[in-house]
Amino acid sequence: MLDPVLAKIDDDLPNAMERLLEFLRIPSISTDPAYKMHCDTAADWLVEDLKSIGVDAGKRTTPGHPMVVGHAEGTGTHAVFYGHYDVQPVDPLDLWDSPPFEPAIEDTAKGKVIRGRGSSDDKGQLMTFIEACRAWKAVHGALPARISFFFEGEEESGSPSLVPFMQDNADELRADIALICDTGLFGDSTPAIVTRLRGLLGEEITIIGPDKDLHSGMYGGVSMNPIRVLTKVLAALHDDQGRITVPDFYNGVPELPKDIEAQWNDLGFDHTAFLGEVGLSKAAGETDRSALEMIWSRPTCEINGIWGGYTGDGFKTVLPAKASAKVSFRLVGTQDPHAIRENFRKMITDMLPPDCSVEFIAHGASSASEMATNHPAFEAARCALSDEWPNGAAFVGCGGSIPIAGHFKKILNTDAMLIGFAKDDDAIHSPNEKYDVESFHKGIRSWARILAKLA
Amino acid sequence: MLDPVLAKIDDDLPNAMERLLEFLRIPSISTDPAYKMHCDTAADWLVEDLKSIGVDAGKRTTPGHPMVVGHAEGTGTHAVFYGHYDVQPVDPLDLWDSPPFEPAIEDTAKGKVIRGRGSSDDKGQLMTFIEACRAWKAVHGALPARISFFFEGEEESGSPSLVPFMQDNADELRADIALICDTGLFGDSTPAIVTRLRGLLGEEITIIGPDKDLHSGMYGGVSMNPIRVLTKVLAALHDDQGRITVPDFYNGVPELPKDIEAQWNDLGFDHTAFLGEVGLSKAAGETDRSALEMIWSRPTCEINGIWGGYTGDGFKTVLPAKASAKVSFRLVGTQDPHAIRENFRKMITDMLPPDCSVEFIAHGASSASEMATNHPAFEAARCALSDEWPNGAAFVGCGGSIPIAGHFKKILNTDAMLIGFAKDDDAIHSPNEKYDVESFHKGIRSWARILAKLA
Repeated sequence: MLDPVLAKIDDDLPNAMERLLEFLRIPSISTDPAYKMHCDTAADWLVEDLKSIGVDAGKRTTPGHPMVVGHAEGTGTHAVFYGHYDVQPVDPLDLWDSPPFEPAIEDTAKGKVIRGRGSSDDKGQLMTFIEACRAWKAVHGALPARISFFFEGEEESGSPSLVPFMQDNADELRADIALICDTGLFGDSTPAIVTRLRGLLGEEITIIGPDKDLHSGMYGGVSMNPIRVLTKVLAALHDDQGRITVPDFYNGVPELPKDIEAQWNDLGFDHTAFLGEVGLSKAAGETDRSALEMIWSRPTCEINGIWGGYTGDGFKTVLPAKASAKVSFRLVGTQDPHAIRENFRKMITDMLPPDCSVEFIAHGASSASEMATNHPAFEAARCALSDEWPNGAAFVGCGGSIPIAGHFKKILNTDAMLIGFAKDDDAIHSPNEKYDVESFHKGIRSWARILAKLA
Repeated sequence: MLDPVLAKIDDDLPNAMERLLEFLRIPSISTDPAYKMHCDTAADWLVEDLKSIGVDAGKRTTPGHPMVVGHAEGTGTHAVFYGHYDVQPVDPLDLWDSPPFEPAIEDTAKGKVIRGRGSSDDKGQLMTFIEACRAWKAVHGALPARISFFFEGEEESGSPSLVPFMQDNADELRADIALICDTGLFGDSTPAIVTRLRGLLGEEITIIGPDKDLHSGMYGGVSMNPIRVLTKVLAALHDDQGRITVPDFYNGVPELPKDIEAQWNDLGFDHTAFLGEVGLSKAAGETDRSALEMIWSRPTCEINGIWGGYTGDGFKTVLPAKASAKVSFRLVGTQDPHAIRENFRKMITDMLPPDCSVEFIAHGASSASEMATNHPAFEAARCALSDEWPNGAAFVGCGGSIPIAGHFKKILNTDAMLIGFAKDDDAIHSPNEKYDVESFHKGIRSWARILAKLA
């Protein structure tokens, strides 16, 4: 059953890449309202593509960008596959070597890549699964199992519509296992199944001082400068050991179990190579933790954006009326994002000097989650992946936050399994994002093998 | 001699305002290269206007924006008048209630104002002097003294061409006294002669970490975040008492002489009203200094702009490759701007964690200066101002930095006298800049009186 499917995948690769390029040309940036129409177009494109392989698919409205849901009849295990069609913003645009939404296949020193925003995160990844299904359908006239498809368009902007939609459509989306393709390989030759994900809490803060911009000659020194206040409160979020100072922040942060620690040590993670890839040499963060632990099992607090005052060419001696920053927390264990939001806001508010006020905007909150590795699908997938790749598949952690996995469990009682083929140098969320043609090709083959095992 | 000139000024006020509005319509923003042509246009406008009152005027090229120099023959004291025709940038544009370069006369609760960028700083102010000359010329056929005019177009962008130009044209610009109109009244009814000015040092710093923007899920916690480093180094520039921590920063900062302190106390400065004007209630800055002392005789360090990472709508979990800030210092006494620049850069560099580098851009450096109040022009001007305004003129300090005063003394050995008619609520460097019609009208009359005394 499987071999002709794999052969079909190999034969059809050029067409599969053309389809992906077409999908990548749609600038579906979800966080920027100016791109709303393009998100809609991307959803329509997915519906049409699913229909072309016999899936009963449709676009479903939400208060934000639409969902795409589809179902294919079949026997055996019922799997629901999740991906997201929205992409990150592209700024700073001047650092891209080619336009982000004019994707192309490029030859590089490390092999052929598909270049463009979304090529890896997540359009390229989600298409690996659809292409595997297309090959099964072409060869055998049907998919090998009962499969549902569930795509959202707000993953890069906090997924505001996701939970209500899953609650309202729980019966339709529930399955034996949820498959999610939004993660990476462990190494270039080592596929990975993610067993734990960090949660994410986003906050935007604006410090407000005088009621108008002031001249620093007339008011400098004697009046409150919101940028100075902002740097003080942000600088206070970490102590000298890199620990986060928000009160009660570490409540619910577990120490790593010895067996997992041993398993991770066996992975032979090369943190020098990992950091060297991006021009760094030394692990920052908590001084008493290993790099892998910091990425997979420790919480973080990062400033993702900051702005205030005059930022153009030249100089302007202004004291601005306000200054802002975007701050995010990655969460682990049973850390409660809502309690942390509250403590963070109180901490900042308590630090304010006289004549200053602060405004907060909430940008999403999700807890960390751990996968049910004892579910039989995990062992099936591990074998399938090990058949396709040079090295056997590893159970790994993930520093990113993919709240959908927790939602499948909490809302639908459906265990989730995260398998993806991105590489560390894919530059997701950065200029010049790419996806290796090898990731795409072997990714499709991997899903074909996994579907065969699940059938 | 004087009375018909004052009468002419009163009669001609509507025409004088029309001329000012025409001048204000030229968007001569010097710091932004996009406005270079408009700076040139403003210089041409001044040349024509000076010629119209019989001044032998011309535009003089520099490596930056042009200077305007003119001479009018006359007897008695030789005065050189300085002003600047360039203006501040206008962002944030959305906070303006009317377009910044479509000036208009507005009725307000506090009287008529001239609204628009540059109305107060410095086009409106410099025109008070030109209009006074125009009235003298119209009534008596000549100016009452030998007068030179010297206007620059780079005051708001660090005056890069000023010192070389003054050095190259020293003989032409040297005079018995330099008159500068770029300062304010002490109170609405109290004219002021500025006797001390703070210096200004500008620095732009960029902290550089990873060699590309990173995803905070993958790298958060373990890799250096330049925004975090930037907030740490900027937050360290002041201690808890508001003192500046740059090594040796206070070298050359004198304690205020008792006689000046007594004189300032007599001024009855209302710091509550001063701060209340901009929505503040409490003096920030050094905890053991009075508000007036902090503005007039203490040095400052302020952050005038900050930017890095994602600053658009929504949220992006990016760790940026770099983050920047513009920092300025106001200097007093004999503080050496070049030594402070060096110590500031060393302090920042020494604070950097591994894997971080920093780049600096210098944005101008000028020392503080004190005026020669024993020069006879000071007493003459004090009497003339006291004749025009309800309250007698005060000798005051100024928190701003007008390096030209020090240049006149150092390069030309010409003492400078700073007299201006701006008010604290003029919103210079801010949206909705204005100049009171009363400032303009009584300013013109004040100069007519001062010229009569100097003649």
